[in-house]
Amino acid sequence: MRKIFCFLSLSVLVSKFILAQSVGVESINKYVKQNTGHIINEFTSFLSIPNIAADTPGLQKNTAFIMSMMSKRGIQNIQLLNTTVQSAPPAVYGEVMVPGAKQTLIFYAHYDGQPVNPAQWAKELDPFQPGLFTGAIDKGGTNISFPADGMYNNDWRIYARAASDDKAGVDVILNAYDAIKISGSALSCNLKFFFEGEEEAGSIHLNEILEKYKALLESDLWIICDGPVHQSGKKQIVFGVRGDTHLDLTVYASKRPLHSGHYGNWAPNPAMMLAKLLASMKDENGRVMVKGFYDDVTPLTATEKNALAEVPSVDEQMKKELGISVTEMKGLSLTEAINQPSLNINGMQSGNVGKLASNQIPTYATAVIDLRLVLGNYWRRQQQKVIDHIKAQGYFVTDHEPTDEERKEYAKIIKVIPANDGYNAQRTAMDLPIIKKVIDAVKTTTRDQVVLQPTMGGSLPLFLFEKYLGAKTVTVPIANYDNNQHAENENIRLGNLFEGIETMASLMLIK
Amino acid sequence: MRKIFCFLSLSVLVSKFILAQSVGVESINKYVKQNTGHIINEFTSFLSIPNIAADTPGLQKNTAFIMSMMSKRGIQNIQLLNTTVQSAPPAVYGEVMVPGAKQTLIFYAHYDGQPVNPAQWAKELDPFQPGLFTGAIDKGGTNISFPADGMYNNDWRIYARAASDDKAGVDVILNAYDAIKISGSALSCNLKFFFEGEEEAGSIHLNEILEKYKALLESDLWIICDGPVHQSGKKQIVFGVRGDTHLDLTVYASKRPLHSGHYGNWAPNPAMMLAKLLASMKDENGRVMVKGFYDDVTPLTATEKNALAEVPSVDEQMKKELGISVTEMKGLSLTEAINQPSLNINGMQSGNVGKLASNQIPTYATAVIDLRLVLGNYWRRQQQKVIDHIKAQGYFVTDHEPTDEERKEYAKIIKVIPANDGYNAQRTAMDLPIIKKVIDAVKTTTRDQVVLQPTMGGSLPLFLFEKYLGAKTVTVPIANYDNNQHAENENIRLGNLFEGIETMASLMLIK
Repeated sequence: MRKIFCFLSLSVLVSKFILAQSVGVESINKYVKQNTGHIINEFTSFLSIPNIAADTPGLQKNTAFIMSMMSKRGIQNIQLLNTTVQSAPPAVYGEVMVPGAKQTLIFYAHYDGQPVNPAQWAKELDPFQPGLFTGAIDKGGTNISFPADGMYNNDWRIYARAASDDKAGVDVILNAYDAIKISGSALSCNLKFFFEGEEEAGSIHLNEILEKYKALLESDLWIICDGPVHQSGKKQIVFGVRGDTHLDLTVYASKRPLHSGHYGNWAPNPAMMLAKLLASMKDENGRVMVKGFYDDVTPLTATEKNALAEVPSVDEQMKKELGISVTEMKGLSLTEAINQPSLNINGMQSGNVGKLASNQIPTYATAVIDLRLVLGNYWRRQQQKVIDHIKAQGYFVTDHEPTDEERKEYAKIIKVIPANDGYNAQRTAMDLPIIKKVIDAVKTTTRDQVVLQPTMGGSLPLFLFEKYLGAKTVTVPIANYDNNQHAENENIRLGNLFEGIETMASLMLIK
Repeated sequence: MRKIFCFLSLSVLVSKFILAQSVGVESINKYVKQNTGHIINEFTSFLSIPNIAADTPGLQKNTAFIMSMMSKRGIQNIQLLNTTVQSAPPAVYGEVMVPGAKQTLIFYAHYDGQPVNPAQWAKELDPFQPGLFTGAIDKGGTNISFPADGMYNNDWRIYARAASDDKAGVDVILNAYDAIKISGSALSCNLKFFFEGEEEAGSIHLNEILEKYKALLESDLWIICDGPVHQSGKKQIVFGVRGDTHLDLTVYASKRPLHSGHYGNWAPNPAMMLAKLLASMKDENGRVMVKGFYDDVTPLTATEKNALAEVPSVDEQMKKELGISVTEMKGLSLTEAINQPSLNINGMQSGNVGKLASNQIPTYATAVIDLRLVLGNYWRRQQQKVIDHIKAQGYFVTDHEPTDEERKEYAKIIKVIPANDGYNAQRTAMDLPIIKKVIDAVKTTTRDQVVLQPTMGGSLPLFLFEKYLGAKTVTVPIANYDNNQHAENENIRLGNLFEGIETMASLMLIK
């Protein structure tokens, strides 16, 4: 392990030598090296405070901790941004106003985490007692003590809830500012900090916060620090997110379960009906057969197409890791596939399987499908296309369990409950002047390629920033891609944390 | 209620007048009328003894009760037919040998019942404390006391586990013999009685019993008293059963659940794959698309076709009752549909639905399908046709969870576990001389049509009688069709019980 450490240190040195022309970033690197022990100590204290949605006192301790981190760094106008809803976790705000600055950048991360089921975590782990490991546990990493000398290896990992998603974001942003301040680098932009506390619970009060604090939150660009770097390990900048919405489908057949012998062939089987309906939604090449599904998609620009062509392929790597040999949309790479709207079955169920299975014809069959949206789609319209497709298959669509009269009148009956909420997709143009500065800044921190992703596959409520503030957003993630985000054994690779500080600092130093 | 009772009594009288030419049956009717109180008392005592498979002492009490019923009636050679397996419930045997008889009839019913979940039963019911109701509970029947005067209404019902399936069978067979004996009617056939104790548990030791007691069980015809009369309320004779077997299917995709945003469109969705596979198995008219599925079906004979044409249609009645407006196999009546082999989904499952649904691409999807067979099908061959169909859809079929090597090699992977057991169908020719006598006998008990069904939809191991004894079988059911067989709130309509005694007696009196 020591050998690897030496090699990596050498690699970092070479890298830094090449980047010497970038004034400021070099000094950030020096700061990080000299303060590794302090940075990790503060981070593990932060990770030790439980931060799940149900734990209001825990969330309050987190906001107090963040405010003290800000205060220590001399950040000004520190405050909690509350809504009228008492129980809604506040956002933590702070700012650094620079005399004569013509631009304002606002850095976003969130301090709340996904729920935990400690029983699902590796036996040596406690979600809120950070543990240090020599590597990924599932690849043989072993538990070690936090070193007294502050010497950490880039490949070591800290395991804890929110280690990557997204206390790492809060941590690298505040340490980037600390490094800039201590190293005496000059700022050209005003900096604002916005740490949300309700992201994992669906950001349900974010719109209220944005509306109420519109003036305070004025900026030229929101920089979202959340999510993982590219699966190739390269840094990436993401210019948009897919939108998301859902539909719950329930197909009805006989009112009571029937003996499959006495009625099999004669009574309709709802599982077969649902299977046929779902099967009708996609062709053998994974293309969605719902009429007009792709019609309102805003085409990628030439710049975005060029960027896509430059994204390194991770298809073979991911296929191997996931144990699959073919993909759903034939002929499309992962990068291309996530730039298309999708229709995906989250779950389906009818009757019983396994030991509970019995010789019956079930009474109903149900499925949940989620729709991912790209720019140009509108979530309610996308839902409606699916509903129209279902009608075109001969279904009577209702929002309730069918009445006897409806059962008598219609051959095929389905209850469709479209989700009452959804995100539209959001995408920021890659050739805006401020975006070019972001790309250039991140490039100064690495001699490797910076992956430019027009869209990430997942969804974030970035359209809210556009809607309520008229603001631009860009996402600059820093976590390792194999961080077990949202699941058990969440972790951050230390190299990603350290490099993340440099990345954020490079953005704060935009001129 | 009294008014209805008078009307029914009148109807019965008219009916009996018409049937007066049938010597014997008239006196059976008289016996039943005079002994209603005694018959019901004995029956409710019988129903009070728990008879589920797990309850060995309960089953022993049942065999003792049946042996005492036989003994009281002067039945000879009463004994338990055991296998080498200690825990297997024995069959109860008895016989009445008639000097000079040239034929032997053996009457079959079973004394064991389906498991019960008392919580699912109506609140005023206990599965093993028989309750008397003025009609079907779900049609407004109310609980009344058993009348001291022994005056029962035909439309009243007794609720208890096994009230219809199949202690009613044991009861009507033994009371029919009692009536014959007391009324002094002369027997022409030897009578044998065989009451199984393991039918609801799959008759897994029946083959051993049949082999071991082959000589004792010699007969010209087995008369199976189990199941319901026709849905029209008419008496029926059933000449065969469908066979039955199962397959468990599990389609595999990614090794770990994936975020539907980051991988939706790219990673295969096992629920969609299973939906497409299941959908490929049937066309829009409900016809099974598995190659050769109907090829080995033995065609119905002219006699059977004529019989089918005479079966009263209950399609509209059943559609209304079940709340469906179309049937699965378009253009086929219920009677026609159950004379075809079937493929039915018992259950399917993937990911989660309802409140547990999450934005994931599940790792696998599973379904259980059951195959009903008709004469000419062989259960292993029928399973193989389905497996061949799955292969023809491009699947690699395995019997285990796929290895990494298999995942790498094959695009579509499915685990198929065909059931290790199955029943073949069985059908007795309707124009055998002894079968003609059966039909004639039942006809003497009613002025209404007797429905002749070449096959019932469900499955019974009747092929075992053919295989181990070379015996012929015919099924003469007596229970009301809406008896909730196998489910909560099982019941018998008293008119069916009383008429069942007459039906069985008419058969015993065959010359």
